[in-house]
Amino acid sequence: MKYLERLKNLKAYKTETTPCKVKLSSNESPFDLSDKLKERISQEIKKINFQRYPDPHATRLKEVIANFVNSEENLNITPENLVLGNGSDELIHLLITVIGDLKNPVAYPIPTFPMYQVSSDVVGRPKVEFELDENFQLTKEEIDKALSKNPDAFFFASPNNPTGNSFDRDLIKYVIDKGVFTVIDEAYIHFSDKESFIKEALQYDNVVVLRTMSKVGLASIRLGYLIAKKEVAEEINKARLPFNVTYPTQVIGEIVLTEGLDELNQQIKAVREERTRVMSEISKIKHIKVYPSDANFFLMKVPNGDLLHKQLIEKGVLVRNMSHLPKLENCLRVSIGKKEENDEFIKAMFEIFKNG
Amino acid sequence: MKYLERLKNLKAYKTETTPCKVKLSSNESPFDLSDKLKERISQEIKKINFQRYPDPHATRLKEVIANFVNSEENLNITPENLVLGNGSDELIHLLITVIGDLKNPVAYPIPTFPMYQVSSDVVGRPKVEFELDENFQLTKEEIDKALSKNPDAFFFASPNNPTGNSFDRDLIKYVIDKGVFTVIDEAYIHFSDKESFIKEALQYDNVVVLRTMSKVGLASIRLGYLIAKKEVAEEINKARLPFNVTYPTQVIGEIVLTEGLDELNQQIKAVREERTRVMSEISKIKHIKVYPSDANFFLMKVPNGDLLHKQLIEKGVLVRNMSHLPKLENCLRVSIGKKEENDEFIKAMFEIFKNG
Repeated sequence: MKYLERLKNLKAYKTETTPCKVKLSSNESPFDLSDKLKERISQEIKKINFQRYPDPHATRLKEVIANFVNSEENLNITPENLVLGNGSDELIHLLITVIGDLKNPVAYPIPTFPMYQVSSDVVGRPKVEFELDENFQLTKEEIDKALSKNPDAFFFASPNNPTGNSFDRDLIKYVIDKGVFTVIDEAYIHFSDKESFIKEALQYDNVVVLRTMSKVGLASIRLGYLIAKKEVAEEINKARLPFNVTYPTQVIGEIVLTEGLDELNQQIKAVREERTRVMSEISKIKHIKVYPSDANFFLMKVPNGDLLHKQLIEKGVLVRNMSHLPKLENCLRVSIGKKEENDEFIKAMFEIFKNG
Repeated sequence: MKYLERLKNLKAYKTETTPCKVKLSSNESPFDLSDKLKERISQEIKKINFQRYPDPHATRLKEVIANFVNSEENLNITPENLVLGNGSDELIHLLITVIGDLKNPVAYPIPTFPMYQVSSDVVGRPKVEFELDENFQLTKEEIDKALSKNPDAFFFASPNNPTGNSFDRDLIKYVIDKGVFTVIDEAYIHFSDKESFIKEALQYDNVVVLRTMSKVGLASIRLGYLIAKKEVAEEINKARLPFNVTYPTQVIGEIVLTEGLDELNQQIKAVREERTRVMSEISKIKHIKVYPSDANFFLMKVPNGDLLHKQLIEKGVLVRNMSHLPKLENCLRVSIGKKEENDEFIKAMFEIFKNG
């Protein structure tokens, strides 16, 4: 298979698929859509012309997304500021493919979301990986080191996955001011009070913001979006697949982001409240370090990550084992679930750690 | 925008979006799903856990697709022989990204489906474009010329779009036997009596077959698939986005490819019958050359392509103007519609050409 040689050593993106009663492993929203919204979706789905290609420009969905962003951020973006993706995964892959020259590296801190590494490897692009400090924060020293290797782009997931913290705004601004193309992946921003980089994306040619509906209740439909200046969005739009957002996804996205907005916001609020409670409970357990979180999950350092991961599965709770990743020895990532799911997780933890 | 420089000259894939009463421009099926199937889809859609990621392996959908292929081709493929894509567009792009080395070219004949060119340009890969003869057939001379430039892969759309004809089987075999990676894009095979290359794909490491549901009634859901040896499929699967097929698409695909098979086959049959009738009628018009077709469309050479395209739009019929593409001067591509749509097209043509 000589033409597939390059894939031999590719580390594909792995997901956790062990079936478990309580799934706190994929940073999904724990809440399904209401029956009312599902009924509306089911009505509108029937109206699809299934034999037709979807709108390649997703005109109506883009308007709805622009309104959604504007209402949250008090901005005035238009559909021309947007590029839609089949999940933000696709947009990450697209950016890694088209920004600058494939011969030049892209840079990202570690640990972070693995898609930056996977996509770089798939397109055979060099990588500049630089380290976060012991609090998983950016440092000027490491960024300067990365800059010295002349990457075409930096990827910052902020809030960062799997660490949960937001990055130092001034250090991201420092990279932007160097003129390097800067991608701020705000997949988890809805669970944070930190300021978004959308204003910078609308101001500078070398800044784009990525967002996704996957963390706020719609992972199923794969809908990510990129926000940028019109001229930037226009160029990137030329390079995406023409029909990358399916017709059902366009229909469902439109319904949820109009009729479902209150529902969605209530669910985000509930996750944030539960996050405070769960983290506070787990912090009571000796020998466990709970890292601060601006996301819908948190990271904890435990005495034995592999063992605890297994023990939790035995008790019906699936979390993500990060133990084998660089700088994440004995770390597990826990998504925030519904109250009763979190109760099961807390109970299991206290049982395993003998009530602390 | 120095980091987007490479996209400046990119010719994006263009679709025809002029609204028209009769749309014969995108090689879609003219038939929507039955109300019965839509009702079933609408029931099953409600059961989706919208907050969850789709099955990254699309296990059930792959089984259903394997059964569908086996029943049509009298084969015994399994889910391990498949790679699914967000349309076959995504699979074309993936292959152009991962086969061999991006420094080496990919080869394809012209005229053909523009995605091979677009995807090569997006990833910055060199192209070897070689010419079809005056009947749009492959020639050994041109293939040898292409081979001499050492491409890593050949792409053959057979039946070819936009010309409609199938390629010489022996010449494709000739390329396969040279050991070069060979992609046979069988998007239109359901409208042809020619033999598929699936058997070769299951036999050789350097052959894959692409198929899509877009031409048989499901363009809306973006579902393409690649058929290959297990070892080949496994490697390619590592490189795709983990959640590239949405949850609704998996649900809808499963329903249509089980409960909707009879419907789908009847629709294919109707299109084939109508193709014979429409082509025979249009052939009666003087000064128009109708090219043979194994697809759900046909190509015609007319006295003035731009003018006729415009005149047809004025009469409410949208066809695809290919006039400006190499080797397709004054050629229009016409998808086969429903009987009444085809009647409108035929009537418009006879009016424009004064009854022949």
